[in-house]
Amino acid sequence: MVLIVLDLAGVAVFAVSGGLLAVRRQLDVVGVLVLAVVTGLGGGVIRDVLIGDVPPPGFADWRYLLTAVTAGVVAFWFHPALERTIRMVNVFDAFGMGLFATAGAIKAVEHGLGPVPAALLGMVTAVGGGMIRDVLADRVPQVLVSNELYAIPALTGAALVVLGLELGLPAVAVAVPAALAVIVWRLLAIWRGWTAPSPRSPR
Amino acid sequence: MVLIVLDLAGVAVFAVSGGLLAVRRQLDVVGVLVLAVVTGLGGGVIRDVLIGDVPPPGFADWRYLLTAVTAGVVAFWFHPALERTIRMVNVFDAFGMGLFATAGAIKAVEHGLGPVPAALLGMVTAVGGGMIRDVLADRVPQVLVSNELYAIPALTGAALVVLGLELGLPAVAVAVPAALAVIVWRLLAIWRGWTAPSPRSPR
Amino acid sequence: MVLIVLDLAGVAVFAVSGGLLAVRRQLDVVGVLVLAVVTGLGGGVIRDVLIGDVPPPGFADWRYLLTAVTAGVVAFWFHPALERTIRMVNVFDAFGMGLFATAGAIKAVEHGLGPVPAALLGMVTAVGGGMIRDVLADRVPQVLVSNELYAIPALTGAALVVLGLELGLPAVAVAVPAALAVIVWRLLAIWRGWTAPSPRSPR
Repeated sequence: MVLIVLDLAGVAVFAVSGGLLAVRRQLDVVGVLVLAVVTGLGGGVIRDVLIGDVPPPGFADWRYLLTAVTAGVVAFWFHPALERTIRMVNVFDAFGMGLFATAGAIKAVEHGLGPVPAALLGMVTAVGGGMIRDVLADRVPQVLVSNELYAIPALTGAALVVLGLELGLPAVAVAVPAALAVIVWRLLAIWRGWTAPSPRSPR
Repeated sequence: MVLIVLDLAGVAVFAVSGGLLAVRRQLDVVGVLVLAVVTGLGGGVIRDVLIGDVPPPGFADWRYLLTAVTAGVVAFWFHPALERTIRMVNVFDAFGMGLFATAGAIKAVEHGLGPVPAALLGMVTAVGGGMIRDVLADRVPQVLVSNELYAIPALTGAALVVLGLELGLPAVAVAVPAALAVIVWRLLAIWRGWTAPSPRSPR
Repeated sequence: MVLIVLDLAGVAVFAVSGGLLAVRRQLDVVGVLVLAVVTGLGGGVIRDVLIGDVPPPGFADWRYLLTAVTAGVVAFWFHPALERTIRMVNVFDAFGMGLFATAGAIKAVEHGLGPVPAALLGMVTAVGGGMIRDVLADRVPQVLVSNELYAIPALTGAALVVLGLELGLPAVAVAVPAALAVIVWRLLAIWRGWTAPSPRSPR
């Protein structure tokens, strides 16, 4: 019960970020709602298609859809207020990322994937929705370009979860500290401006 | 039999729109044919992957492929004539959209999806191919940005079909009036310039 | 054994091409590794999702992942040296394309697809990873635009394989000459500057 509430909170935060990008790009109401839904649910849907859990629960379960659509409507009406609280959106987004990475890894392990693919799918769950959002908005996915620490904490959190499950620990005992570690790491990265390394500039 | 002919007509119209965009973007013959095929078949393939009907019939059934490729070849050779009839292409496109939205919703219901996901999948069937087309052509999907009434009639038509099936009506008795309503609505939107609402301009 | 080595060589070459594009676009380490992995494994994953072989072996098998990630790390560190050998990368890419097209077609036939879809899936295996790479890098997929002979040899090779299998020939006896023919054709196209036809310029 707590888990589903946290999961839905992650969907809502991601969906708001999709809706706000749509507003900034001057898309219409369809664009705002579609970007909200694909950002909120896209990562989970990619994971579910790859592990063969179709129709994806995030798509077939009305609570997920309703959450994402509601977040889109909120972004449509209240985007000026939301933009002023963009720092708060980033904080929520860190929570969504931590929750999605760990929950995605647990689901992948439960479906019989090996440790490395399961950890990767955890990361995909966390970053996939945002990547679809950016492709639809015709820009390079920010997670690939922004030099912010985002995918690396997500992958680390997912890997910790997989490690704990391999050691036979119960899912909750593994997921909660892993998600917290990821969220704290991400918040510190925002606060301190930590970045991921870049290749030497070509020429 | 009538249904398959109408469905193939929808594929052909969508494929022509993909081929014409490829010509305008100065792609080569591969680009024209690939854009024709993904535009004509993409929406149905996304739907089929999400409901687990793989390999997707639209991909495995030679009639669909042949129709899409033929439309691509026609776009490759006859694009000057087709561009002059762009209004007619829009009319055909309205038919394709209405047919895909209703047929997609019926298929989703038959595969056991709930009412809301089934209606959404009907819309996805109608708009998915065009979205892939636009992403491959490196632009924001027009259905998100154009302010034209497109996705809303598609979703409404799919929802009407789902409602009728829930009420126990036979598929044909539901699909035909729903598709017609959608097509008329879409044609009126083109003719009268009806648009979807946009969010207030940011700042 | 020989086959898997050749397949992994194809993954490595494609992954290097993805990593190099990421460097040129000034993405960070996450961008380089993600583009390497999706370019190296994307074509096979699309094929596997379409034929229902999930989780995709190219994703669940650690050898594929390790190969793609290693190629990404190599691109991250050694991109200046690699860029100077770009002609050699093109030669390796021709090998990867020939191997993926034929191996992809064989797998599709083994999963029961008809001849035409199987040949198309062979082409998809060969060009899909590069198309995802280009979409993520926010450009039109080069295979659609470059006027280079790329998709046509891939489709021809895949079609030859399907034809041979339909005639009852053993897979190896079909795949080796078909892959060789494709590779030679592609190398000649690079060397002689052969191009695919384009539509007449609009207007």
